[in-house]
Amino acid sequence: MQQALSLAESVLTLTDPNPRVGCVIVKDDQMIAQGATQKVGGPHAEVMAIRDAKTKGFTEASLQNTTFYVTLEPCSHYGRTPPCVEAIIQLRPKRVVIATLDPNPLVAGKGIQRLIEAGIEVSYPLMEEEALALNVGFMARMAEGKPWVWSKIACSLDGKIALENGVSQWITEEPARVDGQYWRARSSLVLTGIGTILKDNPLLNVRSFPTERQPIRAVIDGQFLIPEDAALFNGDPVWIFTYQSNPEKVARLQAKNAKVFNVPEKNSYVDLVAIWQIFQTEHINEIHVEAGVGLNSALLRAGLMDELLIYMAPKLIGSGKGSFSLPVLESLDNVPTFEWVEQQQIGNDMRLRLRNSKRWVALLSQINRKI
Amino acid sequence: MQQALSLAESVLTLTDPNPRVGCVIVKDDQMIAQGATQKVGGPHAEVMAIRDAKTKGFTEASLQNTTFYVTLEPCSHYGRTPPCVEAIIQLRPKRVVIATLDPNPLVAGKGIQRLIEAGIEVSYPLMEEEALALNVGFMARMAEGKPWVWSKIACSLDGKIALENGVSQWITEEPARVDGQYWRARSSLVLTGIGTILKDNPLLNVRSFPTERQPIRAVIDGQFLIPEDAALFNGDPVWIFTYQSNPEKVARLQAKNAKVFNVPEKNSYVDLVAIWQIFQTEHINEIHVEAGVGLNSALLRAGLMDELLIYMAPKLIGSGKGSFSLPVLESLDNVPTFEWVEQQQIGNDMRLRLRNSKRWVALLSQINRKI
Repeated sequence: MQQALSLAESVLTLTDPNPRVGCVIVKDDQMIAQGATQKVGGPHAEVMAIRDAKTKGFTEASLQNTTFYVTLEPCSHYGRTPPCVEAIIQLRPKRVVIATLDPNPLVAGKGIQRLIEAGIEVSYPLMEEEALALNVGFMARMAEGKPWVWSKIACSLDGKIALENGVSQWITEEPARVDGQYWRARSSLVLTGIGTILKDNPLLNVRSFPTERQPIRAVIDGQFLIPEDAALFNGDPVWIFTYQSNPEKVARLQAKNAKVFNVPEKNSYVDLVAIWQIFQTEHINEIHVEAGVGLNSALLRAGLMDELLIYMAPKLIGSGKGSFSLPVLESLDNVPTFEWVEQQQIGNDMRLRLRNSKRWVALLSQINRKI
Repeated sequence: MQQALSLAESVLTLTDPNPRVGCVIVKDDQMIAQGATQKVGGPHAEVMAIRDAKTKGFTEASLQNTTFYVTLEPCSHYGRTPPCVEAIIQLRPKRVVIATLDPNPLVAGKGIQRLIEAGIEVSYPLMEEEALALNVGFMARMAEGKPWVWSKIACSLDGKIALENGVSQWITEEPARVDGQYWRARSSLVLTGIGTILKDNPLLNVRSFPTERQPIRAVIDGQFLIPEDAALFNGDPVWIFTYQSNPEKVARLQAKNAKVFNVPEKNSYVDLVAIWQIFQTEHINEIHVEAGVGLNSALLRAGLMDELLIYMAPKLIGSGKGSFSLPVLESLDNVPTFEWVEQQQIGNDMRLRLRNSKRWVALLSQINRKI
């Protein structure tokens, strides 16, 4: 299963909005074939592994008595591709080991039931935390109808994201910035606020390394202030969420491959709930936030911040801008609290990952439940 | 040498102001005896190891042809105890392996020379970074005439050490607070500012576990504001640094085992250079700072902050008090920068250690130099 998970990880930036899945076929304790899910519309991991076996000269007959290791319950419905369970059943393997259930209501145990009905032994779950980490956004969307959101924050040891004069380039160094682009590359959508666009005019795309898929870049811009010559409009898709109406500007931006979503205003800000409904309709799994204090604080207050991806420079800045603005607290009892996931030195900076453990545990119990 | 270092570590809180030293005797590839330096005035590691060997029935004759592993160059001068080199030479071991030179000007290579003159093979350095870490304060005092200073900071993810209303108990949890007491216990002196005394009235001693030695607690209190009923005055030694004169208060505090040092005023603050001279006279190796923004910032600005011992809670506070106040910067070119040493989860909090790498490298080159 470790190898199947590595295969899934190898397509981390490729398969969105489909889950990243790996599959390994084992015969007589030897790994004989492997596969990973391809770009949307392409074959799934199980089909890739079966193809790999056939390329290596295995006949359908010789694939009986094998064990399949799959990182996600095989699909049982006709989507863009035929159901993977049928491809497996046709080969009559002895056993299928599955890391986690697929919370997709179209699958959700039906894949496993089909295998069992066909007389194939099924074991699950196995290494389910690792499997959840690989597809946390897909799982969250399927199980709860909401994407998984992390915020990338580059700050000093004392939590400053910029000097008093606004200078923030660069608190962290090149290796941390490249690492941050890997997280952009795996996400479905990179989200920022209009403040960051006006201040830094960033591209927010993946350019430190080749990628077959650029995430959508989206701007929360209640008052529709985005300059039409912003660097963001480079031909790749841009989404803008605003509560202002300006059909001429919308038309001109559409010509630049931007899509403007009109959303309600709520307390002088965009209605985040409405935006999250759009994300669900548009099959957004993972959201990578790169923003300033405004959007970060709004997401935190709305309970929409699932993970923090902090790049901490070993520097003290003293006076400067912080990453979050919260109502002044009177006691330490109810501050937003996360759980440490990982810490790793990236160049001279430290990457600290933390997550909302309540939501994580809820997702784990969804994908582990008995069927 | 790994074992000798572990022995030295076992007396981390005991030997101050002497260095923590470990010694292992090896004969025919077998470890036959070991020892660690005892409390001030007690035997050093080499003598403890020789005693251990004799207890186990080894005669002086049978200790020839052995190898000694010592974490610090054996002393060659008469201090509170006779020189260890003479005790070693008497046994005529074949070889002595030494982790680092002793930068103490009274030793500084003389111990090694004595061994070589006596016809004993000597190798050094070995695992010198680990050996320096164990005695960084002693090495700093001997090599440069200044203690090694770390500041313990308990803060949130966004660098806040207290809420706006001053509430700081407790940002971190019990395991982190106990761990912090281990760092107090290894230090020579716990240093704070009068602001912390007035706000929190802390004891600043070691009480979460038994210790044979309490560090001195010292307060920087320029205006001599310390209340005479402060919790600090519990019978154990307290030092106060002030530029005010108040002989009656001094006399009353002396009765409570406090020592008041009069130091010059400099820019409306105590003259830190004068205090550091007192630390040198008083053989202070390691200083554990637990203070607020005032003292922390003063030490940082004066270049006297060698290490940061940060306990970071996985919480976001947003509005609150920071740990450092620095002049407002116009660019990111000259911010105080440290080097990551270690990160370790302690309970639900994260311990981050960083140090001044310039001073560390200078100390390393001192203890590694050729003689």
